[in-house]
Amino acid sequence: MDTIAGAGGYVPDVLDPECPTRKVLDRIGDRWTVLVVLHLLRGSQRFTRLRERVGGVAPKALTHTLRAMERDGLIHREVFAEVPPRVEYSLTDLGRTLEPLIVMITEWAEAHIGRVEQAHAEYESR
Amino acid sequence: MDTIAGAGGYVPDVLDPECPTRKVLDRIGDRWTVLVVLHLLRGSQRFTRLRERVGGVAPKALTHTLRAMERDGLIHREVFAEVPPRVEYSLTDLGRTLEPLIVMITEWAEAHIGRVEQAHAEYESR
Repeated sequence: MDTIAGAGGYVPDVLDPECPTRKVLDRIGDRWTVLVVLHLLRGSQRFTRLRERVGGVAPKALTHTLRAMERDGLIHREVFAEVPPRVEYSLTDLGRTLEPLIVMITEWAEAHIGRVEQAHAEYESR
Repeated sequence: MDTIAGAGGYVPDVLDPECPTRKVLDRIGDRWTVLVVLHLLRGSQRFTRLRERVGGVAPKALTHTLRAMERDGLIHREVFAEVPPRVEYSLTDLGRTLEPLIVMITEWAEAHIGRVEQAHAEYESR
């Protein structure tokens, strides 16, 4: 699977600024990516529905996120020849491997938001 | 610990755009935050050393990241009264709870970079 390690014994290292894993970090860490994956885990979605569900995302930002995710092989975009054309997005097998990670990120956020907000209050009152 | 859930039965929901957990997503998903946590897991660090280790980060971006992380209660900033003053950053207990998550994110990136790059090549050749 790992063509890089396979090609010439190159070992991916996220701590190396030259390593392409750095770019992957940006993508999977992105707020909209996390939320899109969360929604697509429930099944394929049309753009409009996805936009409603994610909430608070500008159409342009969602388009940008979906294109980058498609380029990264995380989602599949299917156009149905209808009038008007229907476009549906779904997770690829690679995208689905993000599930445990995305669940963990959202669980951390939900479990620790109280402590983070407390830290904010303390920081502001210094 | 969770003052929000404790206060009025409010249940944090990352899918709700109004929920503060959304802001936490931005923070812990941020590329520099992930890399700063990775380095501070090895022990406290001075700004200059941190900047060298993280690599490729502009001083301004690192300062911004560290300030946001301090505000979120993830890191502790200690100033030692020396000439010139020495400033050291370390993870708080809250920051340390990010370890399994950060490890998982970087492991995903390192394990799947091959498939992501293959997807890029296929996307470009369409």
